[in-house]
Amino acid sequence: MEIHIINPTITTSWHEDTRRTYAQVARPGTVIRVVTLKWGTASIESYRDEALVVPDILTNVVRAEQAGADAVIIDCMGDPGLYAARELVAIPVVGPAQASMHLAAMLGHQFSVLSVTEQDVPAVAEQAARYGLATKLASARSFGIPVLSLRDDVDQTIGKLVDVAERAVRQDGAHVIIPGCTGLAGLAPRIQAGLADRGCEVPVLDPPSVALKLAESLADLGLSHSRRTYPSPPAKEIRWPADGAFGD
Amino acid sequence: MEIHIINPTITTSWHEDTRRTYAQVARPGTVIRVVTLKWGTASIESYRDEALVVPDILTNVVRAEQAGADAVIIDCMGDPGLYAARELVAIPVVGPAQASMHLAAMLGHQFSVLSVTEQDVPAVAEQAARYGLATKLASARSFGIPVLSLRDDVDQTIGKLVDVAERAVRQDGAHVIIPGCTGLAGLAPRIQAGLADRGCEVPVLDPPSVALKLAESLADLGLSHSRRTYPSPPAKEIRWPADGAFGD
Amino acid sequence: MEIHIINPTITTSWHEDTRRTYAQVARPGTVIRVVTLKWGTASIESYRDEALVVPDILTNVVRAEQAGADAVIIDCMGDPGLYAARELVAIPVVGPAQASMHLAAMLGHQFSVLSVTEQDVPAVAEQAARYGLATKLASARSFGIPVLSLRDDVDQTIGKLVDVAERAVRQDGAHVIIPGCTGLAGLAPRIQAGLADRGCEVPVLDPPSVALKLAESLADLGLSHSRRTYPSPPAKEIRWPADGAFGD
Amino acid sequence: MEIHIINPTITTSWHEDTRRTYAQVARPGTVIRVVTLKWGTASIESYRDEALVVPDILTNVVRAEQAGADAVIIDCMGDPGLYAARELVAIPVVGPAQASMHLAAMLGHQFSVLSVTEQDVPAVAEQAARYGLATKLASARSFGIPVLSLRDDVDQTIGKLVDVAERAVRQDGAHVIIPGCTGLAGLAPRIQAGLADRGCEVPVLDPPSVALKLAESLADLGLSHSRRTYPSPPAKEIRWPADGAFGD
Amino acid sequence: MEIHIINPTITTSWHEDTRRTYAQVARPGTVIRVVTLKWGTASIESYRDEALVVPDILTNVVRAEQAGADAVIIDCMGDPGLYAARELVAIPVVGPAQASMHLAAMLGHQFSVLSVTEQDVPAVAEQAARYGLATKLASARSFGIPVLSLRDDVDQTIGKLVDVAERAVRQDGAHVIIPGCTGLAGLAPRIQAGLADRGCEVPVLDPPSVALKLAESLADLGLSHSRRTYPSPPAKEIRWPADGAFGD
Amino acid sequence: MEIHIINPTITTSWHEDTRRTYAQVARPGTVIRVVTLKWGTASIESYRDEALVVPDILTNVVRAEQAGADAVIIDCMGDPGLYAARELVAIPVVGPAQASMHLAAMLGHQFSVLSVTEQDVPAVAEQAARYGLATKLASARSFGIPVLSLRDDVDQTIGKLVDVAERAVRQDGAHVIIPGCTGLAGLAPRIQAGLADRGCEVPVLDPPSVALKLAESLADLGLSHSRRTYPSPPAKEIRWPADGAFGD
Repeated sequence: MEIHIINPTITTSWHEDTRRTYAQVARPGTVIRVVTLKWGTASIESYRDEALVVPDILTNVVRAEQAGADAVIIDCMGDPGLYAARELVAIPVVGPAQASMHLAAMLGHQFSVLSVTEQDVPAVAEQAARYGLATKLASARSFGIPVLSLRDDVDQTIGKLVDVAERAVRQDGAHVIIPGCTGLAGLAPRIQAGLADRGCEVPVLDPPSVALKLAESLADLGLSHSRRTYPSPPAKEIRWPADGAFGD
Repeated sequence: MEIHIINPTITTSWHEDTRRTYAQVARPGTVIRVVTLKWGTASIESYRDEALVVPDILTNVVRAEQAGADAVIIDCMGDPGLYAARELVAIPVVGPAQASMHLAAMLGHQFSVLSVTEQDVPAVAEQAARYGLATKLASARSFGIPVLSLRDDVDQTIGKLVDVAERAVRQDGAHVIIPGCTGLAGLAPRIQAGLADRGCEVPVLDPPSVALKLAESLADLGLSHSRRTYPSPPAKEIRWPADGAFGD
Repeated sequence: MEIHIINPTITTSWHEDTRRTYAQVARPGTVIRVVTLKWGTASIESYRDEALVVPDILTNVVRAEQAGADAVIIDCMGDPGLYAARELVAIPVVGPAQASMHLAAMLGHQFSVLSVTEQDVPAVAEQAARYGLATKLASARSFGIPVLSLRDDVDQTIGKLVDVAERAVRQDGAHVIIPGCTGLAGLAPRIQAGLADRGCEVPVLDPPSVALKLAESLADLGLSHSRRTYPSPPAKEIRWPADGAFGD
Repeated sequence: MEIHIINPTITTSWHEDTRRTYAQVARPGTVIRVVTLKWGTASIESYRDEALVVPDILTNVVRAEQAGADAVIIDCMGDPGLYAARELVAIPVVGPAQASMHLAAMLGHQFSVLSVTEQDVPAVAEQAARYGLATKLASARSFGIPVLSLRDDVDQTIGKLVDVAERAVRQDGAHVIIPGCTGLAGLAPRIQAGLADRGCEVPVLDPPSVALKLAESLADLGLSHSRRTYPSPPAKEIRWPADGAFGD
Repeated sequence: MEIHIINPTITTSWHEDTRRTYAQVARPGTVIRVVTLKWGTASIESYRDEALVVPDILTNVVRAEQAGADAVIIDCMGDPGLYAARELVAIPVVGPAQASMHLAAMLGHQFSVLSVTEQDVPAVAEQAARYGLATKLASARSFGIPVLSLRDDVDQTIGKLVDVAERAVRQDGAHVIIPGCTGLAGLAPRIQAGLADRGCEVPVLDPPSVALKLAESLADLGLSHSRRTYPSPPAKEIRWPADGAFGD
Repeated sequence: MEIHIINPTITTSWHEDTRRTYAQVARPGTVIRVVTLKWGTASIESYRDEALVVPDILTNVVRAEQAGADAVIIDCMGDPGLYAARELVAIPVVGPAQASMHLAAMLGHQFSVLSVTEQDVPAVAEQAARYGLATKLASARSFGIPVLSLRDDVDQTIGKLVDVAERAVRQDGAHVIIPGCTGLAGLAPRIQAGLADRGCEVPVLDPPSVALKLAESLADLGLSHSRRTYPSPPAKEIRWPADGAFGD
């Protein structure tokens, strides 16, 4: 099985980390390929950023299908371009936020999302509602470290995450925790351990791992998204810059 | 007062009609300017189309503010790029769908949207929910004429719209009707009259007019969107094709 | 255009202030007329008060239409008699609470209402739900000054409003603020400035102004409420005291 | 125990029927007293009608408490004045719609209300939502006989009710039926039998009986409405016509 | 009238207290019979406990109908086996939680439940949602005394309940309070008085009393649950341990 | 990896089919073990049936963990005992309905469940709401074949399922279909093909396969349910029939 990961930014320095992260949780026999965008933004922290990364995400999702991928994962908790991408391909397209929110809803009464910035809080609430999970969201709480600084001091990042997660558990009633940025990949076990030390035994999900397991499962089952929800767009004229031509 | 209308497609043939449509309902003293996109799609009938028009919408919204516009309207019922655009400017950015759904909710118990295609039906439901109006949406029903053919035979288009609207009123309990495409601008009075002839006296909104009145009202009141919901994006690297450079 | 304002109380001392408030935000050419009730209560702070003002509101709404008004505004945040009044006239009848809640929902993620008394809190929640906006209400919080004392010490009133609004923003996640009494007309800019000084940049609406802009817009558009929701009542015997005869 | 029934109309011809209806289901020892309004409308079929009956309902609810009633029932499925009346007295004030909707919600998955007119349909939906029962309402369906004609041909009335109720059961999934007008008092067993003959075995409630049992139960339990929701209105000037003076 | 109370545990020491509790609020002429389970758990504080008491509850509900009971009450705030029991008998089966939540919803804006343990909090929220009352639940808050210790020091128990209830009123907006365990039967008046002493005048329900009044009312009205929701199970093979044979 | 399947009935004839069904979709290296209940009912078609199978399900889930299972699946679309079982073990306990509903919600706008009997329709709605997915359920529709007859004439069963599923797609707006009984295991591809032949291209899930993939994924990820939602029950006296002793 071959699963392609779209790093939906132009930040090439994440490329190898992303590949390793996914490869570590992949089943034996699952091949992981990562592509980084040519056009877009360095990170995704606003609706503007999402808007600018989606066109090249679409180009790369189409290419992934043409190259024989069994499934594609868009490696960002905003799930940018998820619906548009599904219109263009038959293979499953997986968003880590959608996958994690649904898994969290199955594992406990309500979940909280630890979001990067204060401005993500309403966006997370809209996302949960769009996925049908408004009643399962205990809260979104931001930890306030910019995406590009998450790895500057990992211990400090984890410390902040545990602090915020503890408030989500004690004050908001969260029973499951979702780190709200794929830049936090692999840190879930340490957050979960930190919470347990403070008397808060709750599962902490690792969204990339959850997305990968969903992608593998869909490929195993021969299932993909519904064509009724995501039909192929009608043919029409598209004009796009020559050297960044959409779909080229 | 100066209000800029973004025709969020590359179809220049709509340009003059759009200008006239808005100018007809503008107050004396309101200047209407229309811009058509350089990059994007010929019409908007899928999530893919939305994704491809948003970058150039953002460029044009920013330019509108720089050129002194008092408000901007994105002339499409998908409200493409509404949230992202608001992050980039201080002036009000108005979406005809958001404006019409809220007005409809004020005028009657529930409203229905007449959507272009069957695939719009779930998108309209998600839109109503995102705007907080899930309980006010009686139904979305498609009338099945492609956007670029809406004006081929206007009488036939109106006939289909009245048929579908009547079912929305009688079977779904719609008390207000919203035509679901700005390409139907100006037809609302004829749809309303057609419905009245069949015993269905309900208001039929003209979304571009409604959007214009909201834009004028916000400019009058000195009000705009909340910076808490739509903060300015943090500075970061953006890479975009040279001859279509975003924000150029 | 002529817009009639119903001061839905028997307190004539508000008459001139109300007229000036609305006239200040009216467009050139919009004539504002204010009527004060003959029968009812001195202010509206309970369901009992609402019940006692509605009959004379209805009388005055009917008279307004007969006198050629293009729209009517019921100048109270309880929107007393809004639905009943719409049954009796064809012209638009606007409630400041309905108009403000929908505008607030368009400008940001969620809004809070600053209510006069603690007992208004559940009433505001019911109102938001009735208007279809339950998911957009962050909170109602009371500031605890009786309606008839709001203007005794305006600086103190504003101070309390800013305190309560700040809590709504910081603790409840409000992104837009609605002062919950039309007796606070004109104070929105000072509340907004006070909040900005404390680091809370959010729009604060002035409900009478918002209602006026909606009334002007509806008159411009030739739109009014749906007869399906608000049909004319069937003819029947009505018995009412001679010197206060309903509809006299 | 003494329970007062407010006939919230000026139609005195219903007086004795109403008394007998309630007396038949009262427990031994429960005294039933009925009062009919001096001011108001002949029946209640619109928001206008509700507005005009509430002031005299309030007068009579206060009088009932002064006269030693243990509980009061407002005998109309619009529950007119329910909230305002509760502000004015300490004894329980019961509305047949609220009582019936909650009982219906306890007896089966979802209930339908058979409403008098088409225009009641949205009003019933708002009522169910206000009482917290939006998810338990299968549908409101009108049977289209004016209130004052319900008893002209009782067999025909029952025939229509059974027809409409059957559609509610088969098409809307109703598992419990509520006749939507207290003018239908006592007909529930015949509707239930008619439905059973057609293969629809569902409980059909008699709202006046349900209201009476709730009133008796509250009096037995020494319980009444919460003062936090329905506080006493603050003292203030009230002006009301001399010969119909409110509260006289 | 004869009403049977199922003590849905194997704790026989509660038997006489339970009988007296119900007898005290029964109407003259209502006979109360209590049965305690042969198989099950000593108290009900988990989903596991609920699962183990339901089979013998069903046996006893069937026996109650055979013995001529007019209604049955399952004396636990988890309402264990309520739906299954209704499938097996025609007489009303009443759950104290369902009865109390609906009554509380009628008496005030929102109610809170004082639950035994922290783990009950999500269970109470699911219960309220299942009964259609999600929007009426202000909060569930635990007071943290095991069921079997509730009567060890009644003053201390009441003190804790008043503390927790006060927080529900002041912080969560509860207007009505429901003690969340039938082991607290009879303490409601003291909790209500304790709250009033602290300035929180709200009704505090006694769930067993509320259940009994509902059972009496249903028997009076000749009403029971809907067969559409709770049809008789189809005949099929059941295998059960010989000396605890289900239904023996 | 070892995954245990609980056949939650006493029908041993399903044992081998169930084992083969799961083994066919298991990954290489996943061992499938099936256990059938000693005590309970022959099939599960009512709340009564669910109540009688849960105790022995719990016994077997505990045994599965003791025997070294990595996860357990309760093979019934009622997910009987799911919450109680999770209290008793640390390994993941998976319900096919919960797993399928969440997967369906990820693959399309809304899903429908094809339920065995008409009486399952409200139960499915309650289930979807409990899992947080009320807004994603398009409908539940019954196909009316008793569980024990599903395999009598498989072609006829599939014919009925396709008929009912087509109505769910065309009339209710279902974009994904869930067969509502694990007795239909393996038939999903034929239902999906039958729908496609009629112009309804939608994914049809096979709930046992979906449950197995979720179980494998959870085991891979080292994740299980939250102890905050499903804490271990406190120790207490349990009395159970000697020869069917719970937990023996």
